[in-house]
Amino acid sequence: MDTNGLFMVFTGNGKGKTTAALGMALRAAGHGLSVLILQFLKGSWKYGELEALKRFDTVTIRTLGSGFTWTKENLDEDRRLAREGWELASSEIRGGGYDIVILDEINVVLSYGLLSSEEVLGAVSDRPARLHVVATGRNAPEELIRAADLVTEMREVKHPFRDRGVKAQKGIEF
Amino acid sequence: MDTNGLFMVFTGNGKGKTTAALGMALRAAGHGLSVLILQFLKGSWKYGELEALKRFDTVTIRTLGSGFTWTKENLDEDRRLAREGWELASSEIRGGGYDIVILDEINVVLSYGLLSSEEVLGAVSDRPARLHVVATGRNAPEELIRAADLVTEMREVKHPFRDRGVKAQKGIEF
Repeated sequence: MDTNGLFMVFTGNGKGKTTAALGMALRAAGHGLSVLILQFLKGSWKYGELEALKRFDTVTIRTLGSGFTWTKENLDEDRRLAREGWELASSEIRGGGYDIVILDEINVVLSYGLLSSEEVLGAVSDRPARLHVVATGRNAPEELIRAADLVTEMREVKHPFRDRGVKAQKGIEF
Repeated sequence: MDTNGLFMVFTGNGKGKTTAALGMALRAAGHGLSVLILQFLKGSWKYGELEALKRFDTVTIRTLGSGFTWTKENLDEDRRLAREGWELASSEIRGGGYDIVILDEINVVLSYGLLSSEEVLGAVSDRPARLHVVATGRNAPEELIRAADLVTEMREVKHPFRDRGVKAQKGIEF
């Protein structure tokens, strides 16, 4: 196989990061490639995405981030949960059972210090040569950006739900 | 129906604009919404995307931009083609037979002056209230950005195919 796996980062404060990851998963599935989506924050993949993914046998989604409290009092517990999720992610990346692994919202977990960039980059550099890895979420750490092959910052120019108080909408936001 | 249609713009020089539009189309399809994708530049939707879209009965894709030459000599002919495509797009937007209309790469057509922003914004403002319209492509004109409800700029931070001469890859790039 002549494919050379890429490490890609989608970051920034704008909309489109998870949407682009979904599009990438489905484009890959259209080629018959196998995709593992590991969801580090509960709830970022909602009804519409999940229904769409069901049409594709080669796309698997797993939730890792249930239970984060994001409070200072429970920092140790949140770190333990992050580590637990990461053990699984790391072994999937190193194991190479998929063509693409999407670490959805892992940048947020990293930016809160629940995991270290070194650990993530360790697994990324140990991965099988053909495996693509995608890390999404705002505030991607500098180390990830330096190590990545492709980085897109989704920059928010205008947002209706904040700027004009528009209600989030079925099929668009979730 | 309490949905208030949004006009959204994905622009910028980074990767992820068409991928996000694809993700949005499939998320919406997951909800059973109907989506029309009008492709203003031939070739921006490739094998993987097109295969993925085939799984969804409620997503239609049509190519409008076949034949653009992008040369000064043929400017009049390119304008004629753009107008022909726009007639169709405009009537679909005003007609309201879909829940979402994606004008893929229309920003490029606008930025080359093959269509005017006023025409596009005219149709957008005449649309049925519940219809979402998405305009993608680099160099979105200022007028579109001002009129949009949501704008994300996909900013290229790093690109492997240019920076390091990496070959475009199946399932990722196309």
